[in-house]
Amino acid sequence: MKIEDLGEIRLIERIVKGFHGDKQIVPVGAGEDDCAVIDIEKAKAGYKYLIVTTDTLQESTHFPAGISPFQMGWSIVAVNLSDIAAMGAYPFAFTIAMGIPAQTETSFVDELVAGIEKCAFSYNAVVVGGGITRSKELILNGTCIGFADNPVRRSRARVGDLICVTGSLGNAALAVKVIKGELEVPDRVGAVAKRALFQPVPRVNEGVLIANSGVATAMIDISDGLALSIAEIAKRSNVGAELYENDIPILSEEIRRDESLNLSKRERRELACYYGGDYELLFTIDPKALQNEELMKRLKREVQMSIIGKVVPPEEGIYFKKGETKEMMEMKGYQHF
Amino acid sequence: MKIEDLGEIRLIERIVKGFHGDKQIVPVGAGEDDCAVIDIEKAKAGYKYLIVTTDTLQESTHFPAGISPFQMGWSIVAVNLSDIAAMGAYPFAFTIAMGIPAQTETSFVDELVAGIEKCAFSYNAVVVGGGITRSKELILNGTCIGFADNPVRRSRARVGDLICVTGSLGNAALAVKVIKGELEVPDRVGAVAKRALFQPVPRVNEGVLIANSGVATAMIDISDGLALSIAEIAKRSNVGAELYENDIPILSEEIRRDESLNLSKRERRELACYYGGDYELLFTIDPKALQNEELMKRLKREVQMSIIGKVVPPEEGIYFKKGETKEMMEMKGYQHF
Repeated sequence: MKIEDLGEIRLIERIVKGFHGDKQIVPVGAGEDDCAVIDIEKAKAGYKYLIVTTDTLQESTHFPAGISPFQMGWSIVAVNLSDIAAMGAYPFAFTIAMGIPAQTETSFVDELVAGIEKCAFSYNAVVVGGGITRSKELILNGTCIGFADNPVRRSRARVGDLICVTGSLGNAALAVKVIKGELEVPDRVGAVAKRALFQPVPRVNEGVLIANSGVATAMIDISDGLALSIAEIAKRSNVGAELYENDIPILSEEIRRDESLNLSKRERRELACYYGGDYELLFTIDPKALQNEELMKRLKREVQMSIIGKVVPPEEGIYFKKGETKEMMEMKGYQHF
Repeated sequence: MKIEDLGEIRLIERIVKGFHGDKQIVPVGAGEDDCAVIDIEKAKAGYKYLIVTTDTLQESTHFPAGISPFQMGWSIVAVNLSDIAAMGAYPFAFTIAMGIPAQTETSFVDELVAGIEKCAFSYNAVVVGGGITRSKELILNGTCIGFADNPVRRSRARVGDLICVTGSLGNAALAVKVIKGELEVPDRVGAVAKRALFQPVPRVNEGVLIANSGVATAMIDISDGLALSIAEIAKRSNVGAELYENDIPILSEEIRRDESLNLSKRERRELACYYGGDYELLFTIDPKALQNEELMKRLKREVQMSIIGKVVPPEEGIYFKKGETKEMMEMKGYQHF
């Protein structure tokens, strides 16, 4: 059945059934009234700051060929949670506005809703509201509300701090190149890369752990590539960055283990630095943290931290360093306009 | 200049300059970081509930011919504030996600932003964040966060309660009919009606006053016409409604005063009941309120309250009553699908 045959009221009733929350904390949830109602004391449990972010994904710009409706729903939540994670905050509530073409099948909407609920639930966020409009292409807008005591800014990196990332970079970019036919890789590698692109993992728990470590000075998520993210921290903090290319964790271990994967050093750098979609966290830490061996072990184990460079004075710019040679980093990545 | 020539980063910088907030309450505002940061204690000032709503407007569906970019910006805030008002809540923070065609002039965006800021500022809401994407048509999504102690639900109307509305109904509908060429009216009347349609007034202060009166049992905003709004309260509260057509305030006094305006009774009913865009509040009050003359005077003066009917048992349905005759109300109004 097409959603235009179902009608708006029944469509909303159907969607709302897919979302669940704790009535004690969210006495009025999705689809129940003009607005959602959240009990502040029960929800915030003592946090000092309310954290708010919004992000949009639309079919023609953001969704790669082959992504499922479930993964589209997952992704709109994940990209918002990634921003919450980048502050080191705890996600709490999520609203979803959907522009949907009238010819869409109701089963497509069901899967979309399942993906939204699954991702939100996985990270303790409650879908508290939303809306649907008839649009020419699928467009999803999410807004996420969270809580934090010590939100980590982009602007507090200091000269001498260590530059770190979580996980590995370039997996989503590899999938884009495979889908476009620009690269051929073994099927198994392609499948791992596509999972990273189609169903990105927001580093929520990692962000909280980094913020709570007490050593983080700045943080951002890597949504549009490492180059643009490091440039943003550099600009906001008025610093430069020295990067050690060999220390950047390019591609996941699962992919790197595949010996038949034949990529040049230049290609690896491209994947890790100039493409988006990874949603890992880029952060800086006080170098004194190195003396706290237990903390360093914990960060390496629990957030898969790699130290990839150090913060330098702003006049030095952003560059790769190898031995005594410096190579300025190109400033490119994903931009909408 | 077109926004695609300006580029995303400079476009965002330009937009962000249009939004202002109190740094004490919103230490991290629009465009400053991954998320906005709001000081809960300073912002909430003791309220019990966080109130959240989201709504979307897009060019092809929602914006009538002749509306200015400023009024589009105003409207996306107003429709969200109207939902906040319908809970009797105080608006606090607003996020705006914009899908904009690449060929849009930067001056258009400037006016849009001015309209957003003007409406938000007028009702004490701070624009704390947002985003832009390239889209085929203009699509604006807003999310509003507010606070309340006693949010008024749609579901608590009781048999015997009085049914009331704020202001007057049908002004926006009149403008739609004039624009479509379905009605001819004097220029002055057309101008008043168009103002109602192009720049709707969210009844924020009225909503708060009604909630604080202590006599309101249910409330909703009339975004898609009186018929659908009364039906929603009836369904949620499991009640019926008896309406007195002659008591419904159809068209603003300014328009009604114009003696050259020649509308049949049927046409007037259509305008008030079956079209959206008015954003007045529909609410029910405990009939004991009638004994509190001072409160009734205050509600009539400060929220332009009209009593238009009374709540009846659900099996009676929703009908107009005149003398001893009952006429069932048609259930039609604006729906997206």
